[in-house]
Amino acid sequence: MNTATLTSDVISSDRVEGTKVYNEAGEKLGSIEELMIDKRSGRVRYAVMEFGGFLGMGTDRYPLPWDMLNYDVDKEGYVVPLDKDRLQGAPRFAQDARPDFTTDYGRSVNGYYGVPFI
Amino acid sequence: MNTATLTSDVISSDRVEGTKVYNEAGEKLGSIEELMIDKRSGRVRYAVMEFGGFLGMGTDRYPLPWDMLNYDVDKEGYVVPLDKDRLQGAPRFAQDARPDFTTDYGRSVNGYYGVPFI
Repeated sequence: MNTATLTSDVISSDRVEGTKVYNEAGEKLGSIEELMIDKRSGRVRYAVMEFGGFLGMGTDRYPLPWDMLNYDVDKEGYVVPLDKDRLQGAPRFAQDARPDFTTDYGRSVNGYYGVPFI
Repeated sequence: MNTATLTSDVISSDRVEGTKVYNEAGEKLGSIEELMIDKRSGRVRYAVMEFGGFLGMGTDRYPLPWDMLNYDVDKEGYVVPLDKDRLQGAPRFAQDARPDFTTDYGRSVNGYYGVPFI
């Protein structure tokens, strides 16, 4: 997460969950529903965005690598580099069908976004 | 977090929040209310336990270093090495008076529990 515009080093999960997500064109994509945390390292691997379905698709959840999120103070939300075309092909799952977040799954998600899987 | 008894590498913040916390004597101490996340690294620094006040103290919040949490499958909750004496002196804050989680604050919390501040 880009913290250049933020004043504290630490944020509460309460603040992240429910925060809106926009693309760089300013279109609202959804909001953060949950965080997926690596149990051993305690690292947040993904902020999971619920997509409101304004493209006529169902309500799906998109795991976004944490480093993709940039907080925009004016928008009071996150901005991610994810245009509609990219979103349509993005890894997603139904709310009631959360996949196992295996290493292979993680690699495929991060690979889609070009974010290193550490 | 000790993951020896868990089958997935990753857990949802939804699952962590609300989970009960016990000490090693089996006494319920409280439950996890929120997670404090380092924005830059995405690392969960603290699971914040709300203490129900059964010792006659008010309802306070205790930041517990993530690595202190051990999930107990039988209890369906976390067990932390935190007896009543240790809890009484532990770093805490009122719900409406969350401190800035500065580096100094982090060092003092981790120092209390003997957990390295990374």
